[in-house]
Amino acid sequence: MGQAAVPRTILQAMEATNRLFSEQVVAGKQIARLDGVYTEDAAILPPDSEIVRGREKIKQFWSKVIIEAGLSAAPLTTVEAEMLGDAAYEIGTAQLTFQGPSGASQVSVKYIVVWKQDADGSWKWHRDIWNPTPR
Amino acid sequence: MGQAAVPRTILQAMEATNRLFSEQVVAGKQIARLDGVYTEDAAILPPDSEIVRGREKIKQFWSKVIIEAGLSAAPLTTVEAEMLGDAAYEIGTAQLTFQGPSGASQVSVKYIVVWKQDADGSWKWHRDIWNPTPR
Repeated sequence: MGQAAVPRTILQAMEATNRLFSEQVVAGKQIARLDGVYTEDAAILPPDSEIVRGREKIKQFWSKVIIEAGLSAAPLTTVEAEMLGDAAYEIGTAQLTFQGPSGASQVSVKYIVVWKQDADGSWKWHRDIWNPTPR
Repeated sequence: MGQAAVPRTILQAMEATNRLFSEQVVAGKQIARLDGVYTEDAAILPPDSEIVRGREKIKQFWSKVIIEAGLSAAPLTTVEAEMLGDAAYEIGTAQLTFQGPSGASQVSVKYIVVWKQDADGSWKWHRDIWNPTPR
């Protein structure tokens, strides 16, 4: 039941991964950079979707959202993070901006991510679920 | 990065907590039994809601959903579970039935729960987020 604080070096690694997602994948539309965001056997649970398993399927999901649906910005804010053994979980919030033919729209979401450290030492999203928050 | 299987005794304890929620809290409308479901400092992240922190606030949330909105059944199905240190996470699905003045309606959801073992030995929901799944 105790709370295990996340060491500063791991928090910094998590922030680097979150920036990679926001800046390179979403704003930069570089879908291939998701290799650095998700574990190979990651799973995501998007709203109004079935569970999506595996990094390749997850790339297809985000490609649709970013390239086809026009997600253009997704800055992430960590609300809390805690170590669970050699893994961690994070609660955060994101402001999603979609660029469409009739202008920009925004959606606020909150999420839980289960994080794992990859073989290369980086910290990646292993399980990822989100839902809308009232604006 | 390894997967740590959940021992059978812990899986059974988790199933007991899930049944307590479905059978006593939701079907039985015994909101006070949430003491056995959530840790005292639990947090839930419901769709279209802000984060709700603390067991007392969580009781108020479920009271509104069960007593006022008519949630009458919420059977839970575990899809996967994994140990993370001395905690665990679970992915699952639930079929929610709401009884309203014009009959019953159903909603399918999927969830991630971060589990912790309480001081009394029982396993409880510590972080809980869900969103809708297409039916």
